[in-house]
Amino acid sequence: SMDGAPPPASPAGLSAFVAVSQLLGLTLLATTGAWLGRYRGGVAWHSPLQFNAHPLCMVLGMVFLQGDALLVYRVFRHEAKRSTKALHALLHGLALVIALVGIIAVFESHRAKGIPDMYSLHSWCGMAAFVLYLLQWLLGCGFFLFPGASFSLRGRYKPQHIFFGIALFVLSIASCLLGITEMLLFKISDSYSHFVPEGVLANALGLMLVAFGLVVGYVVAREEWKRPPLAEELALSMDFKTLTEGESPGGGS
Amino acid sequence: SMDGAPPPASPAGLSAFVAVSQLLGLTLLATTGAWLGRYRGGVAWHSPLQFNAHPLCMVLGMVFLQGDALLVYRVFRHEAKRSTKALHALLHGLALVIALVGIIAVFESHRAKGIPDMYSLHSWCGMAAFVLYLLQWLLGCGFFLFPGASFSLRGRYKPQHIFFGIALFVLSIASCLLGITEMLLFKISDSYSHFVPEGVLANALGLMLVAFGLVVGYVVAREEWKRPPLAEELALSMDFKTLTEGESPGGGS
Repeated sequence: SMDGAPPPASPAGLSAFVAVSQLLGLTLLATTGAWLGRYRGGVAWHSPLQFNAHPLCMVLGMVFLQGDALLVYRVFRHEAKRSTKALHALLHGLALVIALVGIIAVFESHRAKGIPDMYSLHSWCGMAAFVLYLLQWLLGCGFFLFPGASFSLRGRYKPQHIFFGIALFVLSIASCLLGITEMLLFKISDSYSHFVPEGVLANALGLMLVAFGLVVGYVVAREEWKRPPLAEELALSMDFKTLTEGESPGGGS
Repeated sequence: SMDGAPPPASPAGLSAFVAVSQLLGLTLLATTGAWLGRYRGGVAWHSPLQFNAHPLCMVLGMVFLQGDALLVYRVFRHEAKRSTKALHALLHGLALVIALVGIIAVFESHRAKGIPDMYSLHSWCGMAAFVLYLLQWLLGCGFFLFPGASFSLRGRYKPQHIFFGIALFVLSIASCLLGITEMLLFKISDSYSHFVPEGVLANALGLMLVAFGLVVGYVVAREEWKRPPLAEELALSMDFKTLTEGESPGGGS
């Protein structure tokens, strides 16, 4: 900055990266919709098209909403911690509900068609991602949202919550890539190797999923873009430290 | 610690996590070998089995060696920075050579069988991972190993190098999962859904790849396990800072 002081509170590059992430996220959803609508007959419940609700729900819930939930502490960096936390939990909760609908869609569709469940690597990775994501959400609510967990316990759990949160986001994207590959090899195994438009479109969707993960991951990983504690949070944190004589978790809960 | 001082230089949990990572890594290689040997006729160059060199080389190079290269700053935390850096570059270089052999295996095998190249999501993700990994290695050598880059430039590139290094490791593992799924759907598409041993073994290999990525990622991400700068590096860093009046990159190089 001009006066030689530390960089301002709202970093310049952050907004650009967040904008790109949202553009990518919406393009992901549009591309998934285009694939299902143009080549796979569209999406409908209680019909042979019920399966198609699965990829749509998983991309919306486990990728787009989960990714956006990771960004709220960066985007709403000057809001009160409590509101930002509630939004973080809400977006993850919404992602979980939509993912559950997507999982029901594939199980019901398998039952209708007599296809066995849970035999593929996609299903193993995807189910692991969903179950651990639900567990992570419950633990997050228990530690950070409801009162009870001590300041020091929150501080010790926080780095674990962040690491496993990013790991589950990455595993969710990997599961989507596996799902795309499975679907292409089930539906267009004869023409996939001839670079037919459906195969190229679905591959491009896969690369966009990777790109979304990269941009969200970059925003979350960048040290200078972390949410700085507000003045009143710093004061509170020092009060707590004096009261409890425990270690202080960097940047609050 | 007992006297209330900061934790000791060799953290207790680190060795356990590194041991688990190496056990997992060797199990990965053994499981890949068992799959290819038991169910896919083994591995041989200049033969119809040439393709099988591909998965073996990619798991060895792009996963095991790449992962181990990420760990050297944690494992050899008390060695001189220059030697650790050389080992880091060497392991990545070895990984690249072995991955190149694996890529040649699949292209030659495709040519022999008249199968088109580079049409699948696996090939797009895998090739992107390899090309960007080579680029990352060249940039890493240019910035950190050869003289020329200023202290301040190294400090600014370092977080990018770390972020993209981890991202490429993750993309490499995701590409392996896609390769496993492709191979199973090509070879045992009729029996995969009946939980035949080959399918279960290959799925388990996929989960082990995810577990290896998780353990390596956890070791690398954990703040307290980062390599502390040696006393002489700190002194050098302060000399440079005085000389150049530039910003000081945390932890050197």
